[in-house]
Amino acid sequence: MKKHTISAFVLFLILQASFINTIAQVTNLAAGVQKISAGQPDKFTPYAFCEELPMKTALASLPAGKLPFKLADIKISTNDRGVVVEIPLDNSEQLYGFGLQLGSFNQRGLKVKPIVNDNPLNDVGYTHGPTTFYVSNKGYGILINTSRYTTFYCGSTAKLNDRKSTDTERKDGNSVDELYKNNNQALGNVTVDIPGAKGIEVFVFEGPDLKNVMQRYNLFAGGGALPAIWGLGIKYRVKADFNQQQVIKMAEYFRENHIPCDVLGIEPKWQTAAYSCSYVWAKDFFPDPNAFIATMKDKGFQVNLWEHAFVSPKSPLYEPLKTKSGNYLVWGGLVPDFADSATRGIFANYHDNTFVKQGISGFKMDECDNSNIAFGSNSWSFPELSRFPSGIDGEQMHQLFGLLYQKTVYDIYKRSNKRTYLDVRASNAFASSYPAALYSDTYDHDQYIKMILNSGFSGMIWSPEVRESNSIKDFMRRSQTAVLSAQTLFNSWYLQNPPWLQINIKKNNAGQLMDNAKEVEDDIRKLFEFRMSLVPYLYSAFADYHFKGIPPFRALVMDYPEDKNTFNLSDEYMIGSGILAAPLTEKMDERKVYLPAGIWYDFNTNQKYEGGKYYTIKPSLTQLPIFIKEGTILPLAKPVEHVTPDTKFEITCFVYGNHTTTGSLFEDDGVSFNYEKGNYNSVNLLWDKNKGAIKRSGSLKGTRYIIKKWQVIN
Amino acid sequence: MKKHTISAFVLFLILQASFINTIAQVTNLAAGVQKISAGQPDKFTPYAFCEELPMKTALASLPAGKLPFKLADIKISTNDRGVVVEIPLDNSEQLYGFGLQLGSFNQRGLKVKPIVNDNPLNDVGYTHGPTTFYVSNKGYGILINTSRYTTFYCGSTAKLNDRKSTDTERKDGNSVDELYKNNNQALGNVTVDIPGAKGIEVFVFEGPDLKNVMQRYNLFAGGGALPAIWGLGIKYRVKADFNQQQVIKMAEYFRENHIPCDVLGIEPKWQTAAYSCSYVWAKDFFPDPNAFIATMKDKGFQVNLWEHAFVSPKSPLYEPLKTKSGNYLVWGGLVPDFADSATRGIFANYHDNTFVKQGISGFKMDECDNSNIAFGSNSWSFPELSRFPSGIDGEQMHQLFGLLYQKTVYDIYKRSNKRTYLDVRASNAFASSYPAALYSDTYDHDQYIKMILNSGFSGMIWSPEVRESNSIKDFMRRSQTAVLSAQTLFNSWYLQNPPWLQINIKKNNAGQLMDNAKEVEDDIRKLFEFRMSLVPYLYSAFADYHFKGIPPFRALVMDYPEDKNTFNLSDEYMIGSGILAAPLTEKMDERKVYLPAGIWYDFNTNQKYEGGKYYTIKPSLTQLPIFIKEGTILPLAKPVEHVTPDTKFEITCFVYGNHTTTGSLFEDDGVSFNYEKGNYNSVNLLWDKNKGAIKRSGSLKGTRYIIKKWQVIN
Repeated sequence: MKKHTISAFVLFLILQASFINTIAQVTNLAAGVQKISAGQPDKFTPYAFCEELPMKTALASLPAGKLPFKLADIKISTNDRGVVVEIPLDNSEQLYGFGLQLGSFNQRGLKVKPIVNDNPLNDVGYTHGPTTFYVSNKGYGILINTSRYTTFYCGSTAKLNDRKSTDTERKDGNSVDELYKNNNQALGNVTVDIPGAKGIEVFVFEGPDLKNVMQRYNLFAGGGALPAIWGLGIKYRVKADFNQQQVIKMAEYFRENHIPCDVLGIEPKWQTAAYSCSYVWAKDFFPDPNAFIATMKDKGFQVNLWEHAFVSPKSPLYEPLKTKSGNYLVWGGLVPDFADSATRGIFANYHDNTFVKQGISGFKMDECDNSNIAFGSNSWSFPELSRFPSGIDGEQMHQLFGLLYQKTVYDIYKRSNKRTYLDVRASNAFASSYPAALYSDTYDHDQYIKMILNSGFSGMIWSPEVRESNSIKDFMRRSQTAVLSAQTLFNSWYLQNPPWLQINIKKNNAGQLMDNAKEVEDDIRKLFEFRMSLVPYLYSAFADYHFKGIPPFRALVMDYPEDKNTFNLSDEYMIGSGILAAPLTEKMDERKVYLPAGIWYDFNTNQKYEGGKYYTIKPSLTQLPIFIKEGTILPLAKPVEHVTPDTKFEITCFVYGNHTTTGSLFEDDGVSFNYEKGNYNSVNLLWDKNKGAIKRSGSLKGTRYIIKKWQVIN
Repeated sequence: MKKHTISAFVLFLILQASFINTIAQVTNLAAGVQKISAGQPDKFTPYAFCEELPMKTALASLPAGKLPFKLADIKISTNDRGVVVEIPLDNSEQLYGFGLQLGSFNQRGLKVKPIVNDNPLNDVGYTHGPTTFYVSNKGYGILINTSRYTTFYCGSTAKLNDRKSTDTERKDGNSVDELYKNNNQALGNVTVDIPGAKGIEVFVFEGPDLKNVMQRYNLFAGGGALPAIWGLGIKYRVKADFNQQQVIKMAEYFRENHIPCDVLGIEPKWQTAAYSCSYVWAKDFFPDPNAFIATMKDKGFQVNLWEHAFVSPKSPLYEPLKTKSGNYLVWGGLVPDFADSATRGIFANYHDNTFVKQGISGFKMDECDNSNIAFGSNSWSFPELSRFPSGIDGEQMHQLFGLLYQKTVYDIYKRSNKRTYLDVRASNAFASSYPAALYSDTYDHDQYIKMILNSGFSGMIWSPEVRESNSIKDFMRRSQTAVLSAQTLFNSWYLQNPPWLQINIKKNNAGQLMDNAKEVEDDIRKLFEFRMSLVPYLYSAFADYHFKGIPPFRALVMDYPEDKNTFNLSDEYMIGSGILAAPLTEKMDERKVYLPAGIWYDFNTNQKYEGGKYYTIKPSLTQLPIFIKEGTILPLAKPVEHVTPDTKFEITCFVYGNHTTTGSLFEDDGVSFNYEKGNYNSVNLLWDKNKGAIKRSGSLKGTRYIIKKWQVIN
């Protein structure tokens, strides 16, 4: 009996040992970016589809990183279940990332499954923008290059034979309460479970600091996206059943009332069939698309078309794609095998010839996330067991589908040398270079704010859209957040009138406008005008995203990784280099704001605050809850109603703190990729000895910015 | 280009073909139970641990089943991702099962992942009582014998090359609304995705009708559980920090106030350490366990002990189990490898010698479900990537852990020839013979009711516990449901006083009783007395569960599988052969009840109702919302305060409808397994010519039931 016991345990030890995979290969991919390969890595990974080249010069100009562990300390093991990766973790480290997480921010101590999903509850890691990528405040990032459904245990496991786990005198609680209290022991490492894999690639991004890690990540993926400049204005999506005349009428409403707007988005009914999609104009709704687009252009609007990628039998794309799609249908439509470049090409060519050449400025690429639900005979997406001609399976296709759909559509614009700003429902890693804003049907304002922060750890652009609201206060608070985000989107796909005229859905559609509709319209105009004033600053922040990899929207911990007060601060964020935003939600009349080290100015009152402390602010519904960092030159433009290639911004430079300081603006044509060939200007702003000066350098002819005035805030 | 396209597609077809596994083997396991095997099935499956033998005679006495398809129509295919099983599905079929589902009932059209989980939101199939088993109203059941995480697409997928999917003229909606409307096409089959498997066993249970399928399933697993008769009384769990004297005081409260109660459950603090567990009495709380148990026995109480299976370093079980546990710890405790019989033996022997022989009547086996969450350094369970000495991995162990834990503890009682009624937090398939009631922290009353129905499709016992409440109405409605369920459990683990004296947690613990506490106590006593009156009827229903496999609690569709009105009826259920329960929840003052074919009597008013129709009922808070089927002889006992082996029930037989009719009661010692050797009586009740008669047959000496009176309800 005893003997039997021992031999079973010995067998177990042997099994454990056989689990270990000793051979791993390290490749240096770029400055501060290493790849560890073990076993037989998968073919269909996020990085396999990243065709953008690393921005080598920018990468090389970052300070040298330093890992807090040796690469050899990353353990990779394989067995018949899959691959396990174990990465060292220091007791004091804070972890962030895993994509566009909704409910969580600091990931330390959590179990996270970054799996693509349309309606992620439970806070288990599901999101429509997952990445298998996390970063540490100790200045490094780890990316598991897989599209399999993966689980990360972020310092939340304890191993039987791990000294850390067992040698410490453990205080066992004898109740759940005590268990919760007794929660300060740092155990384990980061353990990654990748079932089904036969090998893996682990990408290690060095710092030295947290922001440098994200810079390396974004630069490695080709640099951050630079949207068409008009994309930084206001996007408004009209009601789903609007016909050509109704859309034009809506466009006229904006111009007549001088409410800024750059893009109108057209919803499903522009097509002859939408679930699944035909990609053919429905002539009863839009009798003359060319005339329609021309009219819109005349009025200064870009047109964005809603679609998804599931191809209806009624579509001209059906026959060409029938042999290039998965073996399951979604709503009766084909699921194109976007993992195959020829398939992407067919889809792209059709869209190019039919829409992009016609003048369509962008698309909303919907339904490319997966769903838990199925109802009746309609599965909301394809099963994980699906097979595609390229060899990819449904699970991996789910993780990559949004990424590949973006790539397919973005490539059309790229090769046409036209810039765009897309909407996309799902994404993944290495998407930094795609100018596509994620959106979601979930509508929790607190989560929407958290996602702004998390987007900065993910190389993603997040668009917290505004639809209906519970109250005018709710509406205005949501609108403030929208104006302070990467895309300002009002999605009225089920609203006859703009929500600022009636926040209630039923009344809105019955044409019963609020008594104070005009007042609220005035208020929203103020917010939109602020957004338009901010366009040059935002555009330059996006240029920094592209050329330096700095996320334009990011958590405070990225700029202040040593400040413990920022570790769990998930409702404040940086915009560009000098603005700190602290949005309020419906239930707040005031809120607590933490200002990190330095001097800060309340944008609304110009009051000066000492950093390293908490303050309470009470911005009104038309004020922006933002602070400006001392030393910032904030260039604010006289608001235009929309941006054209010829738009010239008349700018006032606000100098915060009367010290010698510099700022800069990025100047190019705003709509082509010519900046990639150096065809742009850097407009350097200099404040010195109580005087402002500008210095323009670069090869772009003409100017976009006219510096009208300098004003010191002190 | 064209050529390339074709060859890719040909390659795809070849790949598709290579997916198919043609060789499957069929074995007849018992009358109407077939097993299809393909590939290399897993070692660690639910059935692999079912040691109960099929009840062959009972199985053979069921009417012969008839499948609506050929066994060969079940397609099993394997590839490098895993195994896919496809089972035919008729357009009109309704599907049920997948274990103790919380949010869903009719599974037709859903995507279901029956995965063990402590707090299953989203309605994706997660539950603490999953089974990979579903039944069809066409009279068959399918069980995928796996403990891997599996997904079922229940007629919610459409295949590209499936005639059904593509040939129909499909009405594409061009909006989400139309998509929802256009939902009447029956597509696909049942497709089962079992990633990681290299082979599979599919168990097919024949009918001919739905109830027969469940009978076969339960009989095949050894017959349904017959709890100790005292288990059908009231169970009350005391506050977690009660010491010996406080528990005794609570026992005295019940007896002094004549409130029926059979079992007191003791919460974590009876142990020296509980998170993880020591399984050692904490002498500061329970200075003399033997005297305590004796006192409780004197007062007519059974003692049930809370524990979980994660073994603290402070436990005497730690050293013996250290080499027989998984390689990850939970709360610093070992995870015993319950897949290994020697390990189960060590755990069981300790419990037997330390507790069962001491007189402990049962255990509450907590925390054996998995959790999504981890917080700080504490993972709420072991990772899926865990390895155990037996060779099972963490994923499969999770699915089986509750099942194996039950088996470990139940086996102690079985070999001691003592019956019990356990509480368990997780279960799986083939658990029919375990007298263990599942419970859950989720507290949605509607879900609790739905789970009573779903338990009948799962071979599980479900206990919708009562804790705190929003209102007295809420409390009474919950109590009614508890009284009308398989175990009546009041779980006051965080309440100083019984909830009927104070429903509010804070006030309860501050000792502030409600003004009308005594009135509510009177009301609850009425409900408890009804429960005690029902014990003989319930006990006989459980005997039918054991000997005939008929679930004592079950959905109406099981008795009326042809009645469309029952297909989605998820808030009414049958208790035994003649009672229909239609519980109300907090917000209801009245409710709609559907009565199926036949004549029914309102239990409270004796009003007669014609079946096949809907009615509205308004039972008060102390009335039971039940209907009795015409032809039922309902034996109701004079309520006792607790059940002992010597208890004699004084019974009135209520005859519903003055026709010649029969009923029966099961009579045995109530506490041993001697009934398995035939040591029991059948007490047949006969109403004929306005006169009642009883006929006792069997080898049990002595009687438990004294029929005092017959009363006709007409």
